[in-house]
Amino acid sequence: MKKKSHKHKLSSSKAGLPPGDLVYRGEVYTENKSVNLLSFNTKSFEKIDSDNVELILKKVNPDSFNWINLVGLHNTDVISKIGYHFNIHPLVLEDVLNTEHRPKAEESESYLFFTLKMFKKQEIDSEENDYEQVSILLGKNYIITFQEKEGDVLDTIREKLADENSKLRKNNIDYLFYRIIDSIVDSYYKMIEDLGDKIEHLEDSIYLNANSQHYKMAQDLRRELIFLRKSVYPLREAIAKMTKENSTGLISEDTQRYFTDVYDHSIHIIETIETYRDLTSGLMDLYMTSVSNKMNEIMKVLTIISTIFIPITFIAGIYGMNFKFMPELNHRWGYPIALFLMLGVVVVMLIFFKKRKWF
Amino acid sequence: MKKKSHKHKLSSSKAGLPPGDLVYRGEVYTENKSVNLLSFNTKSFEKIDSDNVELILKKVNPDSFNWINLVGLHNTDVISKIGYHFNIHPLVLEDVLNTEHRPKAEESESYLFFTLKMFKKQEIDSEENDYEQVSILLGKNYIITFQEKEGDVLDTIREKLADENSKLRKNNIDYLFYRIIDSIVDSYYKMIEDLGDKIEHLEDSIYLNANSQHYKMAQDLRRELIFLRKSVYPLREAIAKMTKENSTGLISEDTQRYFTDVYDHSIHIIETIETYRDLTSGLMDLYMTSVSNKMNEIMKVLTIISTIFIPITFIAGIYGMNFKFMPELNHRWGYPIALFLMLGVVVVMLIFFKKRKWF
Amino acid sequence: MKKKSHKHKLSSSKAGLPPGDLVYRGEVYTENKSVNLLSFNTKSFEKIDSDNVELILKKVNPDSFNWINLVGLHNTDVISKIGYHFNIHPLVLEDVLNTEHRPKAEESESYLFFTLKMFKKQEIDSEENDYEQVSILLGKNYIITFQEKEGDVLDTIREKLADENSKLRKNNIDYLFYRIIDSIVDSYYKMIEDLGDKIEHLEDSIYLNANSQHYKMAQDLRRELIFLRKSVYPLREAIAKMTKENSTGLISEDTQRYFTDVYDHSIHIIETIETYRDLTSGLMDLYMTSVSNKMNEIMKVLTIISTIFIPITFIAGIYGMNFKFMPELNHRWGYPIALFLMLGVVVVMLIFFKKRKWF
Amino acid sequence: MKKKSHKHKLSSSKAGLPPGDLVYRGEVYTENKSVNLLSFNTKSFEKIDSDNVELILKKVNPDSFNWINLVGLHNTDVISKIGYHFNIHPLVLEDVLNTEHRPKAEESESYLFFTLKMFKKQEIDSEENDYEQVSILLGKNYIITFQEKEGDVLDTIREKLADENSKLRKNNIDYLFYRIIDSIVDSYYKMIEDLGDKIEHLEDSIYLNANSQHYKMAQDLRRELIFLRKSVYPLREAIAKMTKENSTGLISEDTQRYFTDVYDHSIHIIETIETYRDLTSGLMDLYMTSVSNKMNEIMKVLTIISTIFIPITFIAGIYGMNFKFMPELNHRWGYPIALFLMLGVVVVMLIFFKKRKWF
Amino acid sequence: MKKKSHKHKLSSSKAGLPPGDLVYRGEVYTENKSVNLLSFNTKSFEKIDSDNVELILKKVNPDSFNWINLVGLHNTDVISKIGYHFNIHPLVLEDVLNTEHRPKAEESESYLFFTLKMFKKQEIDSEENDYEQVSILLGKNYIITFQEKEGDVLDTIREKLADENSKLRKNNIDYLFYRIIDSIVDSYYKMIEDLGDKIEHLEDSIYLNANSQHYKMAQDLRRELIFLRKSVYPLREAIAKMTKENSTGLISEDTQRYFTDVYDHSIHIIETIETYRDLTSGLMDLYMTSVSNKMNEIMKVLTIISTIFIPITFIAGIYGMNFKFMPELNHRWGYPIALFLMLGVVVVMLIFFKKRKWF
Ligand SMILES: [Mg+2]
Ligand SMILES: [Mg+2]
Ligand SMILES: [Mg+2]
Ligand SMILES: [Mg+2]
Ligand SMILES: [Mg+2]
Ligand SMILES: [Mg+2]
Ligand SMILES: [Mg+2]
Ligand SMILES: [Mg+2]
Ligand SMILES: [Mg+2]
Ligand SMILES: [Mg+2]
Ligand SMILES: [Mg+2]
Ligand SMILES: [Mg+2]
Ligand SMILES: [Mg+2]
Ligand SMILES: [Mg+2]
Ligand SMILES: [Mg+2]
Ligand SMILES: [Mg+2]
Ligand SMILES: [Mg+2]
Ligand SMILES: [Mg+2]
Ligand SMILES: [Mg+2]
Ligand SMILES: [Mg+2]
Ligand SMILES: [Mg+2]
Ligand SMILES: [Mg+2]
Ligand SMILES: [Mg+2]
Ligand SMILES: [Mg+2]
Ligand SMILES: [Mg+2]
Ligand SMILES: [Mg+2]
Ligand SMILES: [Mg+2]
Ligand SMILES: [Mg+2]
Ligand SMILES: [Mg+2]
Ligand SMILES: [Mg+2]
Ligand SMILES: [Mg+2]
Repeated sequence: MKKKSHKHKLSSSKAGLPPGDLVYRGEVYTENKSVNLLSFNTKSFEKIDSDNVELILKKVNPDSFNWINLVGLHNTDVISKIGYHFNIHPLVLEDVLNTEHRPKAEESESYLFFTLKMFKKQEIDSEENDYEQVSILLGKNYIITFQEKEGDVLDTIREKLADENSKLRKNNIDYLFYRIIDSIVDSYYKMIEDLGDKIEHLEDSIYLNANSQHYKMAQDLRRELIFLRKSVYPLREAIAKMTKENSTGLISEDTQRYFTDVYDHSIHIIETIETYRDLTSGLMDLYMTSVSNKMNEIMKVLTIISTIFIPITFIAGIYGMNFKFMPELNHRWGYPIALFLMLGVVVVMLIFFKKRKWF
Repeated sequence: MKKKSHKHKLSSSKAGLPPGDLVYRGEVYTENKSVNLLSFNTKSFEKIDSDNVELILKKVNPDSFNWINLVGLHNTDVISKIGYHFNIHPLVLEDVLNTEHRPKAEESESYLFFTLKMFKKQEIDSEENDYEQVSILLGKNYIITFQEKEGDVLDTIREKLADENSKLRKNNIDYLFYRIIDSIVDSYYKMIEDLGDKIEHLEDSIYLNANSQHYKMAQDLRRELIFLRKSVYPLREAIAKMTKENSTGLISEDTQRYFTDVYDHSIHIIETIETYRDLTSGLMDLYMTSVSNKMNEIMKVLTIISTIFIPITFIAGIYGMNFKFMPELNHRWGYPIALFLMLGVVVVMLIFFKKRKWF
Repeated sequence: MKKKSHKHKLSSSKAGLPPGDLVYRGEVYTENKSVNLLSFNTKSFEKIDSDNVELILKKVNPDSFNWINLVGLHNTDVISKIGYHFNIHPLVLEDVLNTEHRPKAEESESYLFFTLKMFKKQEIDSEENDYEQVSILLGKNYIITFQEKEGDVLDTIREKLADENSKLRKNNIDYLFYRIIDSIVDSYYKMIEDLGDKIEHLEDSIYLNANSQHYKMAQDLRRELIFLRKSVYPLREAIAKMTKENSTGLISEDTQRYFTDVYDHSIHIIETIETYRDLTSGLMDLYMTSVSNKMNEIMKVLTIISTIFIPITFIAGIYGMNFKFMPELNHRWGYPIALFLMLGVVVVMLIFFKKRKWF
Repeated sequence: MKKKSHKHKLSSSKAGLPPGDLVYRGEVYTENKSVNLLSFNTKSFEKIDSDNVELILKKVNPDSFNWINLVGLHNTDVISKIGYHFNIHPLVLEDVLNTEHRPKAEESESYLFFTLKMFKKQEIDSEENDYEQVSILLGKNYIITFQEKEGDVLDTIREKLADENSKLRKNNIDYLFYRIIDSIVDSYYKMIEDLGDKIEHLEDSIYLNANSQHYKMAQDLRRELIFLRKSVYPLREAIAKMTKENSTGLISEDTQRYFTDVYDHSIHIIETIETYRDLTSGLMDLYMTSVSNKMNEIMKVLTIISTIFIPITFIAGIYGMNFKFMPELNHRWGYPIALFLMLGVVVVMLIFFKKRKWF
Repeated sequence: MKKKSHKHKLSSSKAGLPPGDLVYRGEVYTENKSVNLLSFNTKSFEKIDSDNVELILKKVNPDSFNWINLVGLHNTDVISKIGYHFNIHPLVLEDVLNTEHRPKAEESESYLFFTLKMFKKQEIDSEENDYEQVSILLGKNYIITFQEKEGDVLDTIREKLADENSKLRKNNIDYLFYRIIDSIVDSYYKMIEDLGDKIEHLEDSIYLNANSQHYKMAQDLRRELIFLRKSVYPLREAIAKMTKENSTGLISEDTQRYFTDVYDHSIHIIETIETYRDLTSGLMDLYMTSVSNKMNEIMKVLTIISTIFIPITFIAGIYGMNFKFMPELNHRWGYPIALFLMLGVVVVMLIFFKKRKWF
């Protein structure tokens, strides 16, 4: 996520354009143009993948529930056709294409629109977390999901859908809508767990031996949390809308109850992010303190050594002077006495430092 | 609490699973599978411990009030059976198993659900405070409490229940519900008192002689307070719900009045936590200032000694030069004059420093 | 206040106890067991002090207004008797005994309960401000005040009550209730004035010559303000309740108007505390800056002296070497030329420093 | 403003006194006892100055609009008489005397009360801004203004009032009320402009050459902004009240529209103050950074010079030893070789420093 | 923007003036006095530029929609005439002239008033972003836009208006109103993108090699963000008004839907500004840390070199003393032994430093 995280592809290039002209400005992650349709009711289950969106739309079964999944938002023509078929407002289609859109739920007369980020750990040792924008449309008998990239966290749901005895098949399509959003919100937990581990390891490392890489790591953590917070805060409000009666009536009271559970999750995620922000800013303070403690110790050593040697070096300097008449120089015990004088000075100083608890 | 406190067992491993599949992801603290039932009314009092949850459920007396207590949340089958018997929503049972759940009160048609943290000081000299998640279900004539570990702060209540003359026996079961929550909230005070003492001792220690352990201790305090705050903030709102009329009608007006008292306690706890956060962040500043003051004193000593000796060492260096023609060297009083010159330089410098109030 | 201020006697020792068992956990400041009754109406005024609370309660005149004042909250038996006589809820009596209670106003069917802190400057040169918890009960024809210690800020009111022509005698008892709370709120001003003076003196001292005591003093001020804030913030809300119609109807519209004035005072106090917090945190920054400025000046002197003497001491070192073949040493003007060389180095350095504005 | 700004004459000396006893505790700025009356309607305009408040009150014309202006709040007897004549509540008169009162608007049955601070630049080069408390009473056909000191920002209004064709003469008295408050709010802009200029100059000075005076100046700015904020924040709310229908009906809908304009001004002032607070705290950071940068540069010079001379001075020290058997000393090229050795050491060090980008 | 950004031309010079006297206090950017009229309906489109505002006003077609655009707010006479023609309230005209006005939407009986900032990148390499105040009036069949300077971001709209098939021609004038505001809000994105790039580059530069210019740059960024925030925050509220039914009924439900899209944009911009503020304050911390790390490294070198050479220089000093009786001096191996002694001291010290991980 690092660098990428605060580099928004802001929509300046669309300034002045009318709404409804579908322009995709995000990155293209897939060459895919195919659309996927899952058509199911209590008795039947059908699965179609096709390049041909018109074919898919023809296959949409009015007596079943239909879940259309599209990957790759650069296929604006496909999105247009889907929008036209289901009579979607152009502004909603524009939002689907905006991969920087903040999470939001919006209700129309005949459908509900939901958009949010989905997180995914790509590989086991991958440093970077992977995320993409997902938009979901819920209509009377259909759900349409729009994704940026191949792969998502919804495969468990697809498997269950194929199973005649699963709750998903016995319920209305709003229950599927809930399960999709619930799965995506669950995907945040993995992300947050990783951050928690990173914070803990970083803290241990700083206590052990602070180095300047640690500060950079804390800064990176802080930035990830800023980004994450921005993605999750509005989500709470969007989910809260799902727990109340909508003017569309698309979500049953039973499913509203399920959304209160997702709502609890979203609050928990937000509270954890806030806690991590506090901990991360504590790590930065800790780094500064560790560095400053180390510095102080170094300075103390310098001081002690300087303070001990400067006076006795001076004494040596005195007796290095070339004056003709310096009686001490000719004294039999002059040299040992001078050495003892120096030793005395050192002892006095050590006592002075010890008293002040400098070491 | 320390390390443990920000290591949440987040629910990532349940991503995509349907709700209602009871999976426990917390730690297992007890081998216990037994359930405890206290069945009481104004006249009778009965106590049953059993391994057999079906037996317990059969013993539930419809003409008495029944308090079922379960310890060990890994017994998901037992929890399922209880849930089935009392007709509890699967999402509520899921929340019971979530030991990281934020405090919350939730009302259903036939029962009230309350979940919160309970604090307990294990032994006298134990550094770590002990806490666990407790969930409470209040029905028309039953209370069910779910705990993670053996031991709680409710033994006083159990004793009083056995006493025919106690208020607990003369009142409805909602009064027992209040007493349980009140006792748990009271358990927070011990926790907070400990933190207050720690803050005070730490402050005294830093004033005496700041060392780098103190910063670590302040950081630990800060983290404990962050954790505590997260546990208590939502509690206020949950208790506030108990002070108002619920749609369930399970809590009488009299008991609502008692909950306003618990509400006062929860606000007091929150305000104290906020005060402690302020004090703790003050401790960190104090540490930094103390360290910096100490450092300054060391630097001052270095400066003064260097500044005094550097010029007179230079003078000694001058008269240590081996030039053939240096009239002073041959002068009868050259040596004592040089010494007096050095003394003069030292005196001038001391006056300069004194004037600048450097010591 | 200092140390005491964040050492709360939290109620952990009462965990699990039923409400209504009156237990006092505060400090005992007085041996007093006597109760004081002022009974008055437009025509008569009576004053009774007695050890015997039953006697006092018998003397309560149903045709007059009665102000009962109790000092010493450890007299739980006396408080019980009063509570029983006036039919006060056990939870209210519990709150009376809680000397750490946050300010609050609570209305019952037949009385109003108000609790807050009262401040008092003990002696002129006393460093510590003195405060105590005061609880006030207003009924149809009575006021009961409960105090921790002897002495309060209400003597002016007592004098006026004895005066037949005073407004207090001509008005209803809710007006006395207002005057008591108004006087207590006025007691905060003295407290705040002292803090304002301290802040100002501290600032002057730091500008003059910052020493480490100043930081401690700023920390103490900060803690006092944290404590004060905690005592005053909830007060505003409590007084706001008095300016609106209560369900009890105990406070007339006229007196509500008077409470808006007290409400203004409470907001003013809060705003001043906030300002003082800002100023105090400014003092801490100022201290740090002053110390750092002083340190910088010291370092500058060290640098300048070192930088000047190090090179010329080196030159002296050169000509202190004992090589056989060093032509300069035998040169007639070797010594003066060396001295001039040193002088030249010093002048060049001084110009360099001057240019960089180092002094 | 400086010092004065946080030295509030808090009302502690009035503790326990009944409301309505008019006591002035502010400073006395004028010996004036005269009152000024402007009596006007569409046709006539009359102006009276007099020592005799009874005379003025007799001259109040029930068929005209009357603006009474009083300067000097120590004239409590005059204020009493005015209060008695217009039937003003004693608490309002008390507020008039409180020169520390926060801005507020309060409506009574027959009048509106408004109190706020008025700012005034005394002389061109005066460092201190001048301000005073102004209270305004609007009745059916009168306005009374109470000021602390001679001089105000209302002379333009007085001139316009004398002009028969001015909008002030053609409108109701609520329009005059608006114009007075609008003029006073406009007086804040001058104040804020000055602060803006000071911030800008201070920033330039710090960039040029930070010295410890700059920190003091930033602290003073910060304190002025704290004070200003306290004076303006509540003003917004007070003015907002004027934009809505009052129960008194004293302000017409047309004038309410004018007050929305003043409301915009008050928000603009608040936003500017907040911006200035941000900028001022930025200045403090800038000062700290500048000082620390300068310090770093000094330290760098010390380090470089020390690090260069310490090793070569050591070499000189070596050949200053008086051992009998030191072959180098007798070598023909010993001296120049030693000098070259020293030069070599210096060159190596300079390369090392250059590489590390230390200069 | 830099310097200019916090130098507000505050309206102090208008203190006391009556509202409605049109005075322009902003800067004059253009000599232009011409007004531009676009008159269009579904069938016709007309464009007129003229010096003569009366002519333009005569050309306003009651059966078409009319968009009047005025550049140069110093033309107060022209603005007066337009205001008189369309019956605009003097306070609105005053707001039009106030180039420092915060964004706001205000509805009157017959028109809607909207004012906000418009951003514009002047040239490709220009450091300074360019902005100006734009005010928009929407009436039943007209829109009037007032600008400070030549040039805007509305040319795309003008081109579309000339195209008979464009949505702008087929819709009501409220749709044009939406398109104008949408285009101006879009202009903020470019601004924000630039800031995002600057932040990123600055971060990279600081990591590479922090110098004092970087702090200045971060401070400038911070100031730009403060300014931007002030410009955008109130905008959200103003746009929110457009998404709800106005009392004027000038905006149709369809267009309200379009404004919810602009509302989303405004929230997105605000959230991005907040993120950038966080990142910028992180940059300042990063700068401080980098500088302090560099300083620490320098100090470490000084310490190590000093600590190594000070003791051995002392040894050299010892054997540079001129005592007659110093046996070592005459010893055959005295010199090499002394050198080995020095070497030993150096080795011991290096081991000591290595152990402490000082290098
Ligand atoms: Mg980011
Ligand atoms: Mg993206
Ligand atoms: Mg995907
Ligand atoms: Mg889930
Ligand atoms: Mg749940
Ligand atoms: Mg769940
Ligand atoms: Mg921080
Ligand atoms: Mg934690
Ligand atoms: Mg747990
Ligand atoms: Mg337990
Ligand atoms: Mg209790
Ligand atoms: Mg209580
Ligand atoms: Mg209690
Ligand atoms: Mg703090
Ligand atoms: Mg106490
Ligand atoms: Mg007392
Ligand atoms: Mg008072
Ligand atoms: Mg008042
Ligand atoms: Mg008062
Ligand atoms: Mg102030
Ligand atoms: Mg004043
Ligand atoms: Mg005046
Ligand atoms: Mg004005
Ligand atoms: Mg205006
Ligand atoms: Mg105006
Ligand atoms: Mg700031
Ligand atoms: Mg401008
Ligand atoms: Mg323009
Ligand atoms: Mg747009
Ligand atoms: Mg959109
Ligand atoms: Mg758009």
